[in-house]
Amino acid sequence: MVTQSQVDLLRPASYVYGSWHSTLEGQTLLDAVYGRPVAVISSEGVNFGEALAYGRRAGGALRRMTFHERARALRALGTYLMERKEAYYALSTLTGATRRDSWVDIEGGIGTLFSYASAARRELPDERFWPDGRVERLGREGTFVGRHLLVPREGVAVQINAFNFPVWGMLEKFAPAFIGGMPSLVKPAPQTAYVTERVVRDIVASGLIPEGALQLVTGEPGDLLDHLEEQDVVGFTGSAATAAKLRVHPNVVARSVPFGVEADSLNASVLGLSVKPEDPEFALFVREVAREMTGKAGQKCTAIRRAVVPAHLVEAVTDGLRRELSRVTLGDPARDDVRMGALVSVEQRERVRETLAKLQSETRVLISGEATLLGGDRERGAFLDPTVLLCESPLTARGPHELEAFGPVVTLLPYDSHDDAVTLTKLGRGSLAGSIVTHDRAEATELVLGMASTHGRLLVLNRDNARENTGHGSPLPQLNHGGPGRAGGGSELGGLSAVRHHMNRVAVQADPTTLTRITREFVQGAQVQEDVVHPFRKSFDEIAVGDSLLTHRRTVTEADIVNFAALTGDHFYAHVDEIGAREGIFGKRVAHGYFLISAAAGMFVSPAPGPVLANYGLENLRFILPVGIGDTIRTRLTCKRRIRKDLRPGETRPTGVVEWLSEITNQDGALVATYDILTLVERARDAFDPPLADSSLDGPPLDGEAAGPAGEADRV
Amino acid sequence: MVTQSQVDLLRPASYVYGSWHSTLEGQTLLDAVYGRPVAVISSEGVNFGEALAYGRRAGGALRRMTFHERARALRALGTYLMERKEAYYALSTLTGATRRDSWVDIEGGIGTLFSYASAARRELPDERFWPDGRVERLGREGTFVGRHLLVPREGVAVQINAFNFPVWGMLEKFAPAFIGGMPSLVKPAPQTAYVTERVVRDIVASGLIPEGALQLVTGEPGDLLDHLEEQDVVGFTGSAATAAKLRVHPNVVARSVPFGVEADSLNASVLGLSVKPEDPEFALFVREVAREMTGKAGQKCTAIRRAVVPAHLVEAVTDGLRRELSRVTLGDPARDDVRMGALVSVEQRERVRETLAKLQSETRVLISGEATLLGGDRERGAFLDPTVLLCESPLTARGPHELEAFGPVVTLLPYDSHDDAVTLTKLGRGSLAGSIVTHDRAEATELVLGMASTHGRLLVLNRDNARENTGHGSPLPQLNHGGPGRAGGGSELGGLSAVRHHMNRVAVQADPTTLTRITREFVQGAQVQEDVVHPFRKSFDEIAVGDSLLTHRRTVTEADIVNFAALTGDHFYAHVDEIGAREGIFGKRVAHGYFLISAAAGMFVSPAPGPVLANYGLENLRFILPVGIGDTIRTRLTCKRRIRKDLRPGETRPTGVVEWLSEITNQDGALVATYDILTLVERARDAFDPPLADSSLDGPPLDGEAAGPAGEADRV
Repeated sequence: MVTQSQVDLLRPASYVYGSWHSTLEGQTLLDAVYGRPVAVISSEGVNFGEALAYGRRAGGALRRMTFHERARALRALGTYLMERKEAYYALSTLTGATRRDSWVDIEGGIGTLFSYASAARRELPDERFWPDGRVERLGREGTFVGRHLLVPREGVAVQINAFNFPVWGMLEKFAPAFIGGMPSLVKPAPQTAYVTERVVRDIVASGLIPEGALQLVTGEPGDLLDHLEEQDVVGFTGSAATAAKLRVHPNVVARSVPFGVEADSLNASVLGLSVKPEDPEFALFVREVAREMTGKAGQKCTAIRRAVVPAHLVEAVTDGLRRELSRVTLGDPARDDVRMGALVSVEQRERVRETLAKLQSETRVLISGEATLLGGDRERGAFLDPTVLLCESPLTARGPHELEAFGPVVTLLPYDSHDDAVTLTKLGRGSLAGSIVTHDRAEATELVLGMASTHGRLLVLNRDNARENTGHGSPLPQLNHGGPGRAGGGSELGGLSAVRHHMNRVAVQADPTTLTRITREFVQGAQVQEDVVHPFRKSFDEIAVGDSLLTHRRTVTEADIVNFAALTGDHFYAHVDEIGAREGIFGKRVAHGYFLISAAAGMFVSPAPGPVLANYGLENLRFILPVGIGDTIRTRLTCKRRIRKDLRPGETRPTGVVEWLSEITNQDGALVATYDILTLVERARDAFDPPLADSSLDGPPLDGEAAGPAGEADRV
Repeated sequence: MVTQSQVDLLRPASYVYGSWHSTLEGQTLLDAVYGRPVAVISSEGVNFGEALAYGRRAGGALRRMTFHERARALRALGTYLMERKEAYYALSTLTGATRRDSWVDIEGGIGTLFSYASAARRELPDERFWPDGRVERLGREGTFVGRHLLVPREGVAVQINAFNFPVWGMLEKFAPAFIGGMPSLVKPAPQTAYVTERVVRDIVASGLIPEGALQLVTGEPGDLLDHLEEQDVVGFTGSAATAAKLRVHPNVVARSVPFGVEADSLNASVLGLSVKPEDPEFALFVREVAREMTGKAGQKCTAIRRAVVPAHLVEAVTDGLRRELSRVTLGDPARDDVRMGALVSVEQRERVRETLAKLQSETRVLISGEATLLGGDRERGAFLDPTVLLCESPLTARGPHELEAFGPVVTLLPYDSHDDAVTLTKLGRGSLAGSIVTHDRAEATELVLGMASTHGRLLVLNRDNARENTGHGSPLPQLNHGGPGRAGGGSELGGLSAVRHHMNRVAVQADPTTLTRITREFVQGAQVQEDVVHPFRKSFDEIAVGDSLLTHRRTVTEADIVNFAALTGDHFYAHVDEIGAREGIFGKRVAHGYFLISAAAGMFVSPAPGPVLANYGLENLRFILPVGIGDTIRTRLTCKRRIRKDLRPGETRPTGVVEWLSEITNQDGALVATYDILTLVERARDAFDPPLADSSLDGPPLDGEAAGPAGEADRV
């Protein structure tokens, strides 16, 4: 029987095999602030085997998209969600989160989509596979070569998320899986799943990603893991205990299903020995510790749990923290004057209190108290005041390094030497994040290298980056998020390295011509195509990988060298000083290297206006043999790679990037220089793309997008 | 009581915590050819906890070496072992291996040391850490940046190896661990551990690697896994069943110990639909299948177990295999006229026979028989004749895709379409290696991309690489070895990617100056040092990262552009054609990009002979803004990176590589071009290194060594 009060409850549904599934019965969730029923949740009736099978089939559509197509879809999705963010903020308040907490979750999560979209367009080819690393020559004659390719795993990425970031937690795993070509099946923690579900509703409604690329299970995971297959992967965020249980699931083990874990860790922040109380770094440290304790009410897996402080500064740090924390107002996070909200549930608060009690056998309380609430219900809401502990023998204590109070709690650990500080951080047995607060660069170097083996991320905080740094506890999509040991050993973020977890890396061995055909990138030694039409007279769409031009020859004369030195001002002795050059490594005067590549351009360039608009860069230049007076050079120019470009705001001419291999040889046919030339080339008149799906949805400027080759070309 | 016959038995010992441990009692091993007792083996009395603790402490010495120091040690070790190889060949025969089989194991194994030594010197810095990937700009103002560093894990690499390659199996895991800075603890399979032990004796005696960098346990592993800690790693090669058991060890799971697995898989070779019996590829396929069946008597985890053959060619292939196999002589592998030796033991032969019996429910025998032995004992030796099976309904059968007969057995699987061929290979649920035999490049592309997600390595075999290819079953140190799913999901080899498994990747966030100090590579935006001495007048040893020169200025004139066009022959319209240039993307005539970098050299070069010997290359050149007539440019040259070089045979002057960042700006201070210049610079007269430890031990030419920047510099 459904009572009146139940009618208003949220009923977050599961989205599996193309449709929504909800049940009336299930677990009732209470809101974190007043303890009122807010949602009923259950995965009853979901067929997990079918959901996985559906996802695997649906993966085909995703795999048929190129990296750039996936990137465009992700970017459009980010824009779409950003326009709807207020609905997520409204629900997020019920989980105890302030607007600032929710900003990290919601806008931080959506930002991950933009970041991956940008990285994929900048660094990956517009292909369905990713040629990785260099071509390896496997035989002396050059007829046998190898290269690695990354291709999508043909399974489902099962993502089991924690309660604390219902939006970011989903999107930071979804984004790299999507770019990698794997559909996701998301299983959020029940407690805050109604926020996740709200976002998934919008994603599904948007129609911007292929059906099946994202499925959602709200409620218990049932027999999900029993149905995993070899091509699936699992990404888990949560407690180390649950991770350990799921990781040994017989089916996961039998099928070698990669199982990535990001577990909470006892993260440390170290205040440098060199810092004095009057230094800006002292205040930065105190503020950072207070911020990490109170942000998200301390429910962050990256939060500072251990503050490693020079022994002589413990009192000053305590005073500072007391001042900072006295300004923290507690209460209903919907109110503007509240700085810290509630924990996610009263059960969670009980767990923190139990851990606090255990910690007190090896620590004593420095700061604690019970502030007046600004809204919210002290008993039925999950409020907890910040607590600062001191452990006086941190090198021998165990609790502070092992017991995690997942709330607004920090323990001060005094130390006297850098070695001890490093040892203390290592007693955590592996952390997601650590920080070092100092302006002394020698101290920073020593501590960073000392702590590097046990951390996934390390922040050096000082006056130089005080304005711009993103803080101890903020994972960034470009940088590794995950850590060794206690932190689970996984790596959820880190730019394209997280995309790799969703792909299989295969070594392909073949002859150069076949490898060129497979990878669509020219391999030295492969057959080339020569044409009566100069390659620079062809549009981007007419140029094929392997198109090649062997130029006429030019004899390098003394006059060339003299004139080049005169014109450029480069009178290096190896070029102009007969005596010095004779004693130098070449034993004679040689042409300037820059003359060789300039003369090569003089031979291969087609001077009249044409599709090739500009040479905007050059890579991998190596001068192999010296060229002396009387040597005769020529070059072979071969199309190595083609990269389509999107039309960017304000651009009218569609273009692409063509990378050419230039191989300059001498009269003996010996290679004297080799390099790759990057050119910007117009598309064919009839190849104009229709306006891109997302060109009208202009997202925020993509971080670093202007730094890639394509970006730079625009500015030439 | 020790009887006379026991006196001659080998007693392979364990080498742990700095000393050798053997026992008289233990498991008696029989030789594979005559079934005579050959060795007694036991790990009785080894304290595994102490061995691991000792290794962790010993790791300190290894971690204090730079990558290049480790590489030199590895190379010297390879040379040392190669001189002693005949002792290993003599023992290897007792395991049933022919000289050719042993060559793969012994010289292939030692070759891995050379390959990793070469890769480390070519691609890694001469440091204890490895700066990875690009510097990420994390804030708009450029005061906050991030980069990844790889540092050695501070634990022990436990390596559990299979019986089939007692030398290669050890060295292919040891090499990347050693380069990565982790000590190894090797646990070979008992059956052939006496060969491994013989090599370890030489390694220890050589004194070429730090004590503790290699420990050996012969016999059972006892409670080894109980003592693992968070910074340790495990690499396992063997059966999927054993892997599954060890992987879930509670201590491995609780401490998130990375556990890499390479398991045998049901590898397939596909004969292309396009191949006709008279094509060279047909003969190549038949020969490859026969070779994979009989090499090492089929006891290779990469061997072809499934031959995927166009249905209409099954008969022709069978005839071909019959011809090939009729030439295979079986017997004592010590004899020159024997092509195939014995399996490792009669127990192993029993296992293969059992699997063969099971396979026959879904297959029938095409080729079998019992050849006359050339030496060896048919009953007490572990001989088994090659067997070819045919599965007529391979798309529905299960046995051929699941049951591995680890011996000279192959099953033919007929197919009719590329889709079916791909499906058949995938029924193996993940393989280490696959091959495709065809000269049709479209067919090769389709099959490679179809099979890519389920394979660790794919070989395309055809007439073009017939002479040089290394075969279906040969892992190469440069390329991935490992595979998804059934193959275990690990990656034992693959150049530096295998080194990464032994390191922790940490993201470091800081201001540019601090990040420069930590990584010893210049980060754009960091403080520079300017000096009255021109940086080109300093020796390699005097130049510091961050040393910088801001040049005088130069106004680019119309005469410059005209003269540069005339001298180089580059009359591209954007430079010389007022009309075309006005309509072009710059809207005006602009200077040649090559002129800008040549003029920059003219401004920064110090002309007289000095320590800077040559500019041998250039990287990352990007032209950012056009430079027109009347614009005034200058450049800032800053030392970005320094790489010491080893003296190579024949070289007399010690040198190093210095990488300079050149930033050309215009009169407004805006960046117009940026690039990295590679120079070869002399060492200081008093910094001459003592002769290198390995300079007298000249190993074989290192594969690809000449291809790196340092190598090329020599040839300029």
